[in-house]
Amino acid sequence: MIETRHQSRALALLRDEGAMSRVELGERLELPRARITSEVARLSELGLVEAAGPSPSRGGRRSTLVRLSNDLRLLGVDVGATSVGVAVTDPSCEVLAHTVEDCDVRDGPIPVLGRITELAEKITGAAPGRLIAAGIGLPGPVSFAEGMPVAPPIMPGWDRFPVRDHLARIWGCPVAVDNDVNAMALGERHAGVARSLDELIFVKVGTGIGCGIVLGGSVYRGVAGTAGDIGHIRLDEYGPPCACGEVGCLEAYFGGSALARDALNLARSRRSAFLADVLAERGTVDARDVGVAAAAGDTSAVTLIREGGRRLGQVVASLVSFINPGIVVIGGGVAQLGHQLLAEVRSVVYRRSLPLATGNLPIVLSELGDTAGVIGAAWSAADRAFTVNT
Amino acid sequence: MIETRHQSRALALLRDEGAMSRVELGERLELPRARITSEVARLSELGLVEAAGPSPSRGGRRSTLVRLSNDLRLLGVDVGATSVGVAVTDPSCEVLAHTVEDCDVRDGPIPVLGRITELAEKITGAAPGRLIAAGIGLPGPVSFAEGMPVAPPIMPGWDRFPVRDHLARIWGCPVAVDNDVNAMALGERHAGVARSLDELIFVKVGTGIGCGIVLGGSVYRGVAGTAGDIGHIRLDEYGPPCACGEVGCLEAYFGGSALARDALNLARSRRSAFLADVLAERGTVDARDVGVAAAAGDTSAVTLIREGGRRLGQVVASLVSFINPGIVVIGGGVAQLGHQLLAEVRSVVYRRSLPLATGNLPIVLSELGDTAGVIGAAWSAADRAFTVNT
Repeated sequence: MIETRHQSRALALLRDEGAMSRVELGERLELPRARITSEVARLSELGLVEAAGPSPSRGGRRSTLVRLSNDLRLLGVDVGATSVGVAVTDPSCEVLAHTVEDCDVRDGPIPVLGRITELAEKITGAAPGRLIAAGIGLPGPVSFAEGMPVAPPIMPGWDRFPVRDHLARIWGCPVAVDNDVNAMALGERHAGVARSLDELIFVKVGTGIGCGIVLGGSVYRGVAGTAGDIGHIRLDEYGPPCACGEVGCLEAYFGGSALARDALNLARSRRSAFLADVLAERGTVDARDVGVAAAAGDTSAVTLIREGGRRLGQVVASLVSFINPGIVVIGGGVAQLGHQLLAEVRSVVYRRSLPLATGNLPIVLSELGDTAGVIGAAWSAADRAFTVNT
Repeated sequence: MIETRHQSRALALLRDEGAMSRVELGERLELPRARITSEVARLSELGLVEAAGPSPSRGGRRSTLVRLSNDLRLLGVDVGATSVGVAVTDPSCEVLAHTVEDCDVRDGPIPVLGRITELAEKITGAAPGRLIAAGIGLPGPVSFAEGMPVAPPIMPGWDRFPVRDHLARIWGCPVAVDNDVNAMALGERHAGVARSLDELIFVKVGTGIGCGIVLGGSVYRGVAGTAGDIGHIRLDEYGPPCACGEVGCLEAYFGGSALARDALNLARSRRSAFLADVLAERGTVDARDVGVAAAAGDTSAVTLIREGGRRLGQVVASLVSFINPGIVVIGGGVAQLGHQLLAEVRSVVYRRSLPLATGNLPIVLSELGDTAGVIGAAWSAADRAFTVNT
């Protein structure tokens, strides 16, 4: 769509900082006046930018502000283990409409992507405009360059399925495919508690455990795209079995499935009267019930959260010593265990990491909840749309 | 010295890739022909670049290659706990002359920096030219922006001493001050086993333990400059006391001082006959003797290295899961314990990190030895010299 790196940088700047004059754009991009004028004219022809009223006076003649065209739309999709979220946003990634539905990722790519395109059709109808790109986060390892999942442990049938090309064909626009936790980290970076912080760690504790690392404002992926995969750090070679086929992984102690397993044990053995009652009543207990039990003062449940928080905290403490981030954000379903979990993680990190690294370090719960993933995916989509095709 | 970002990028490109034609430079920097010609002309007036013969033909008229002026010189200084190294390099950071002397950093900044300027004077005499910048690595936390050490635990008298400004005044050129491990990581990146790898972890095991992280080809420092400070990750809240004032740090188990302490215990208790003999003969034992004892088959010494390697390996395993680097390089004095240490670290990392992250991951010993730090410091110096002064 766009033709030069200057156009690409101009679009990203307008997305990130809103409307500005041609003069300011030129200064920020270090381009001569004539050049920026012609680049903006071209972007306007392409319908990507539009005039947005006069700029505040800087002395001399007033110039006109330029902004991203208001009718541009981005799609953000967040695929979880058991749900999908789809949002449509304006070109600055503000959510205009959002929907979340139950959906089992194990149904395989064709049914799940079919459901997503249905939801997308419905929701873009609610906020019509010109769709320029879509982003999708998947709950497993992703080859960002190829736009497909690679050997994802909890996504049978998805291995190397060409998600990007499949959706690009349907939607007729560029599609960015990323790991769900990376998308959430980007969402927190651009719209959440970590807004405008360039170095952040986002830890997701849901069915699985993962971590998105943002450095210099961009997702850091590592050489094989596995950076931040803390769920399968082995804490104990003789620990409990993990869904990944190994034993003793962090996730095998404290992911959503591990917590559900422990909750069931507490209920069956009646070590937790609270969970035993839930089990008797509903026939099942899950990670969420542990949070409810703990909030009601059930000591076994509190102990479970504390032990999990301690293990998670040990891993986060190392992360903090390595990365020296500006903020740590904890999100995902199990994060709804809330302040007891947060207190335990904080206590371990502040005790075990370097004082210089923790001196001004906030460790906080996500405030975006289930929009972090869709906003981050929309952000990736915009990056994709604003890249020169080569 | 230089005036535009284009000049800055041209100089860095010539340093990193050697001589090239104006046409190629222009293409690489995405600059129009006229602009690159004028920028190169200006750099030539400043004496920073020079002609280097005709370029290989690409059809049509042959153009002249441009390179960094051969008489440019960089100083690289590596300050350790008990030694200083000073090297003079050509503008591509090739070492022309190098000297290492014993020097106790605890003597304080004035005596140590005095000794360094004496060595620098001697050594620049051996490879005369035009000194354009100097870099210095210090064994402690450094404020890179301010060019000074900040609360360095093993450098009494150095806290916030203005090292950069002090040396810049003496040498009359820009000076870059960095942490010694960051400098070594840069040295490995540009001249060692990690040459041309953009994502690497350099682990130094010397008197202290630290780690330099190179991401996207540049040192990653974190928000407060402490990224990679793995020596003070706490492994056990009831562990041995550490020089930093805390207890149970990795360094308190396996730094050079910790090994010397353990060696002394083994010698005194005669659990190691080998070390007991060394103690009787020399009146003292140190970390190096542990390596010699292990090589001679002393089981207590081998156990010591294995235990230390296991603890170091646990920390490196987490690092690998977080960062997903392209290579791990182990250097520093204790790294001379060699292959027994390496085998133990490898075994733990390959066992505990994510298979995808370790699949193609070399874990190797440094081959640069004591030139890694001076080469990396010279590299930082060049970056400094090639930056537009604002």
